[in-house]
Amino acid sequence: MRIEILNTGTELLLGNTLNTHGSWFGRELFNMGLRVARQSTVPDGEAIRQAFEEMVMRSDALLITGGLGPTSDDLTREIVAESLGLELHQDEQALRTLESFFALRGKPMVAANLKQAMVPTGADVLPNPNGTAPGLYLPPRINRRSNCAIFLLPGPPRELYPMFHNEVAPRLRAISGVAEVTSVCELKFTGIGESDFHHGIDDELAALKGLEYGYCARMGEVDLRLIGKDEVISTARDLVLEKFSECLISDDGSSLEATVVRLLRGKGKKLATAESCTGGLIANRLTNVPGSSEVFTHGWVTYANEAKIDQLHVPADLLITHGAVSEEVARAMADGALQESGADYAISVTGIAGPSGGTEDKPVGTAWLGLAIQGKQTQTQKVFHPRNRKDFKQAVSQSALNLLRLALRNFKS
Amino acid sequence: MRIEILNTGTELLLGNTLNTHGSWFGRELFNMGLRVARQSTVPDGEAIRQAFEEMVMRSDALLITGGLGPTSDDLTREIVAESLGLELHQDEQALRTLESFFALRGKPMVAANLKQAMVPTGADVLPNPNGTAPGLYLPPRINRRSNCAIFLLPGPPRELYPMFHNEVAPRLRAISGVAEVTSVCELKFTGIGESDFHHGIDDELAALKGLEYGYCARMGEVDLRLIGKDEVISTARDLVLEKFSECLISDDGSSLEATVVRLLRGKGKKLATAESCTGGLIANRLTNVPGSSEVFTHGWVTYANEAKIDQLHVPADLLITHGAVSEEVARAMADGALQESGADYAISVTGIAGPSGGTEDKPVGTAWLGLAIQGKQTQTQKVFHPRNRKDFKQAVSQSALNLLRLALRNFKS
Repeated sequence: MRIEILNTGTELLLGNTLNTHGSWFGRELFNMGLRVARQSTVPDGEAIRQAFEEMVMRSDALLITGGLGPTSDDLTREIVAESLGLELHQDEQALRTLESFFALRGKPMVAANLKQAMVPTGADVLPNPNGTAPGLYLPPRINRRSNCAIFLLPGPPRELYPMFHNEVAPRLRAISGVAEVTSVCELKFTGIGESDFHHGIDDELAALKGLEYGYCARMGEVDLRLIGKDEVISTARDLVLEKFSECLISDDGSSLEATVVRLLRGKGKKLATAESCTGGLIANRLTNVPGSSEVFTHGWVTYANEAKIDQLHVPADLLITHGAVSEEVARAMADGALQESGADYAISVTGIAGPSGGTEDKPVGTAWLGLAIQGKQTQTQKVFHPRNRKDFKQAVSQSALNLLRLALRNFKS
Repeated sequence: MRIEILNTGTELLLGNTLNTHGSWFGRELFNMGLRVARQSTVPDGEAIRQAFEEMVMRSDALLITGGLGPTSDDLTREIVAESLGLELHQDEQALRTLESFFALRGKPMVAANLKQAMVPTGADVLPNPNGTAPGLYLPPRINRRSNCAIFLLPGPPRELYPMFHNEVAPRLRAISGVAEVTSVCELKFTGIGESDFHHGIDDELAALKGLEYGYCARMGEVDLRLIGKDEVISTARDLVLEKFSECLISDDGSSLEATVVRLLRGKGKKLATAESCTGGLIANRLTNVPGSSEVFTHGWVTYANEAKIDQLHVPADLLITHGAVSEEVARAMADGALQESGADYAISVTGIAGPSGGTEDKPVGTAWLGLAIQGKQTQTQKVFHPRNRKDFKQAVSQSALNLLRLALRNFKS
C-alpha cells in the first residue's frame, strides 16, 4: 500500500515552524506495519492543487494536514472537492457540533466558521473534539479520478493526533488489510557509537533471514530498531545484548531519564542533583517523567561559586586551588548534595559550556561529573563534549544520567 | 524563482529522526528573499529517481540532501547522474581531500569511500570540511533535461549548514539575481493569543500596501512576521506596538529567556529561581542563554516538601494548612530564595503537573507563581495550564519568565 503525506501551510516553509508531522506520521504508520512512500510540504493556497493532483494519481492513501480552518487561506477542503468534481454541502451534524464547540466555551461563532461545516458529497465527517475543524474522509468509491483513500486532517497536533488514532488508523487498517505478523523492537543504547555497532554486530545481523534493522544515532544515544517476526527479533536481540548489554538503556523505547527513575523506584532510593554547567537540565529531564516526585527530592543549580559554597558546602579553597571545573569540586558538590538532601544518591556536574571561559588546560566542552552514594566512596568522571552550548548541556546531562544508570544497574541490595 | 527541496533518507520517514531540514532551508532562503515552493521527503534508494525526475522538470533550483555517504544505500549521486545522462569520473582533488580527511583523523580510508570522490562531468565539487561527503553543484548548462540548477548536499546539519552558507547561498544569489530590497521583522509576543491579533489589528495591517505578514502561535507565544520595504514595516510595527507593546518579548527573534537575561544584565541585577513543578526547566532555559552566568546565580528544584522547608525555609505549617500548591507557599519559596541567594530577584513556581495529584479545588494544570524583589512586596500569580506534563512545564515556565520580564520592564532604577 502506497501512502503519501501532504502537509500544507506557508509557515512550515518559512522556517519558523518545524514540521513534526512527517516523522510523527512515519512512526505511527510504521507501528501499524505501514510505510510512508513520500512526504511533501507546500504553502497554503493554490500550490495544494498541483501537489494533490499528482499524489492522488500515484497513491493508495493520501493523508493531508492543514488548511481546514476558517480563514481565507484555508482552502484544502475546497481545492480537493473541486479537483475531484464533488459538490460541497452544509452538513447539519457538523454544524451542530461546531455550534456546541463555541457554546461550551462561551464564545460567539462567526460567519467564517460556517465553511468548516461544508462537506463533499459522500465524505465521512471525522469528529474533532479538540478544535473547530472536523476532519474528512473521502473513500475511494466517491473519487472519480483514482482509487485513492483521502483523509483531510487538521494541522495542530493536539487535534490531529487523537483524530488519527480514533478515526484514521482504524480505516487505514481496514483498507490495507495488514495482518500484524511482524513486531518491532527498539533497543536504546548510550555510551557507544553507531560505528561500534557497524563493526561489532552488523555482519551477524545481516545474516539473519527475515530481519529488517536500522540504526539511528542521536546526541549521546543510538537506537537500534529490529523488525520481523518474534522469533528472529528474539535471536537478534540476544546477539546484540551479548555484546552490548552494559550500554542498553531500554528495550521499550523508554528514555534514559525514565530508565533512571524506574531503577530508583524499583530500589526505593531517593536522588538529589547538583548542577552547574547543565543549569537544571538534568532535573528538568528527570521531572519530565511521571512519578519522578517519588524518587527525586532536591535539585540545586549552583551556577555561581557562592552558591556552591553556601548551598553545597564546597570549600572555598578547593575552588581557588583547583577551579570550579575540577574533579575535587565535582566530588564536593555531590557529597554536599547527598548530605544536605539526605538522599541515597547525588549526581553533580561542573563544566565549561562556552562560548567563552575556556582555557588551554580546560577547553570549552570540558566537564567533571560526581556521583555520591550513601555508604560508598564518591566516584568522579571527566567528559569532553566540545559542542555548542545547548548540545553540550544535553551531552553532559546524558553522561551524568548514564553514570547514575550504571551505578543503579550494578547495585546489589 | 521556483525552488524545491528534496530530503532523502529512510530514517526520516520511519519517525525516529525529525526532519529539520525543511524548516531550516525555509528560513535561510526566506532571509535571502527566496521561497521554497515544495519540500519532499523520500526513502533512500530508487524512490529518489521518481521524485528527482518530477522536480527537475518544474523547478529553477533543486536542493537535495542525503545519500552521498559511502554505503550501499547512498545512491543520490548515481541516480542523479544517470537520470541526467552524465558520466561519473573520479575527481583527483576530491580524492586527495578525502584522503587527507582520514589521514588527519588517523583513520584508515576504506574502498567504500572511493565513490565519494566520483563527480558527474561538468559538476562543481563543493568542499566539505566537516565530513567525508563533498557536495556537488550541477549548473543548468550541463543539464540536458531542464533548466534547473541542482545541488547535492550532505544530510548531517554540521556538514550541511556551513556548505550551504559557503557554497550554495552565493550561487543561488547569483542565479536568482535577488536584490535585497525587502526586510523582515519578527515580533515575538507572550501573554496574548493569535485571535487577539486577528480582532485587534488584522484589518489595519491588511490595509497597508506592500506589507506581507503572518502569525505563528506556539506554546505561550505568538510571533508576528512583517515583510516588506523598511517604510511599510516601520508603519506596521508602530501600529502593532501601539496596541500590544506590553506583550512584546523582542523584535529581533530573541527568546523570552534571552530577553530576561538581557534586561537583568542591563540593570546589573542578579536572579535566583525556586522551582517545584517546573523541575528545573526555568533554570535550564535561562542557562541556555550565553552570558547567563553573569545574572543567574542560584537555582533550587525543591521537588519534595522537605526540600522546600530545609532549603527555602518554607514554614511547615504553611504546607500543612494551605498545601504545597498555594499562594502562600509560592510566596514563601520566592522569599526564601531571595534571602538564601542574596539576589535582587527571585521567582518561584509550585503546581500540579499531573497526570495524578489533582483535586477538585486544585486540578492538574494549576500553578502558583511568586516574584520576590529586594525592597518590594512579593507578588504572586495563579495560572492554569491543563496540558500534558511537558507542555504544562513549558507553559508555566513561560508564565513565570513573563512575570519577571514585566517587572524588569517596569522597573525604574
